[in-house]
Amino acid sequence: MNPSGLESLIEALRCLPGIGPKSAQRMAYHLLQRDRPGAQRLGDAVLHALQAIRHCQRCNTFTEGDICERCASPRRDPELLCVVETPVDMNMMEQTLTYRGMYYVLMGKISPLDGVGPKELGLDRLMTRALDGVVKEVILATNYTNEGEATAHYITAMLKPKGVGVTRIARGVPVGGELEYVDSGTLAQALRERKICGD
Amino acid sequence: MNPSGLESLIEALRCLPGIGPKSAQRMAYHLLQRDRPGAQRLGDAVLHALQAIRHCQRCNTFTEGDICERCASPRRDPELLCVVETPVDMNMMEQTLTYRGMYYVLMGKISPLDGVGPKELGLDRLMTRALDGVVKEVILATNYTNEGEATAHYITAMLKPKGVGVTRIARGVPVGGELEYVDSGTLAQALRERKICGD
Repeated sequence: MNPSGLESLIEALRCLPGIGPKSAQRMAYHLLQRDRPGAQRLGDAVLHALQAIRHCQRCNTFTEGDICERCASPRRDPELLCVVETPVDMNMMEQTLTYRGMYYVLMGKISPLDGVGPKELGLDRLMTRALDGVVKEVILATNYTNEGEATAHYITAMLKPKGVGVTRIARGVPVGGELEYVDSGTLAQALRERKICGD
Repeated sequence: MNPSGLESLIEALRCLPGIGPKSAQRMAYHLLQRDRPGAQRLGDAVLHALQAIRHCQRCNTFTEGDICERCASPRRDPELLCVVETPVDMNMMEQTLTYRGMYYVLMGKISPLDGVGPKELGLDRLMTRALDGVVKEVILATNYTNEGEATAHYITAMLKPKGVGVTRIARGVPVGGELEYVDSGTLAQALRERKICGD
């Protein structure tokens, strides 16, 4: 018995990740009853972003130009290429303030259950990018999940034979981590990949 | 370092209730990366709803016309007026399939902490509606929360002297409820408002 415009709004809000019918209804009422200026901004922002945002032709992240700011920067080391799953992961890498190379954002990961294989992920574009003759080392910074690992393995198998260096970020006990609270898989890896002290 | 259109979208998504910066970012990436048709529908639906949805002049719920379908229906009993806090509550009442009267939707409740008093809630409109000469009984179906109770008390004090009947939905052990799992406040009320058996 909701008016059709309201039903359409509730239905449309359900396309947001993690939002079910109850939340969508609550959001729709909130927008219409308590925050019409916010709703206006939301509608405008979604439509503007759809029109303005595309993928960087070099690193595949979101950008409004052809090339994103990072790829266009002359201050970054073009010999290093860090492969991450998402723009969020790229931001996390940047926040370490220790990496000054380039990026390639997969915008996903190999995930057969979701129908995402190497082709759907566009790994051929990464191949072209990594083999531009300038990149010397590809640093795989995909997650240490099953899918992230599978993606890293696939990229390694794809790039290694072409003569470009491929590395993987280290796995181990987190900084500040206590052994008591670290899962045994992580601890086992940390043990296996132990380093000689005093080096 | 996100492009500005993306930042605007993330910021705009935060006007949704319960959505913080992390969720907003995840939603924005999802819309742009995985569900552009959904994003288009969302943007269109928000802007359409803003333009099309207003409040029913009689019951104050959301509608696209001047008067909502329920208020316009000749099949409903115009002598009963049920006061609820939100359109969701109205739908809940309808789902009982036992109420055939009219509604008035407050679109909120008296809540001094949020700066919502009788005036902000527009209780004068309810007053006009309830005293139209046709309504014989106003059924208060606000929540049994502090704010809902305060709202019910205020409306009672406002309407009782005008000679219109004012009732409150019953409070007690829920249907299917077991005493072991009912809170003591509810149980105390159920005891105080006990009914004579066999009536």
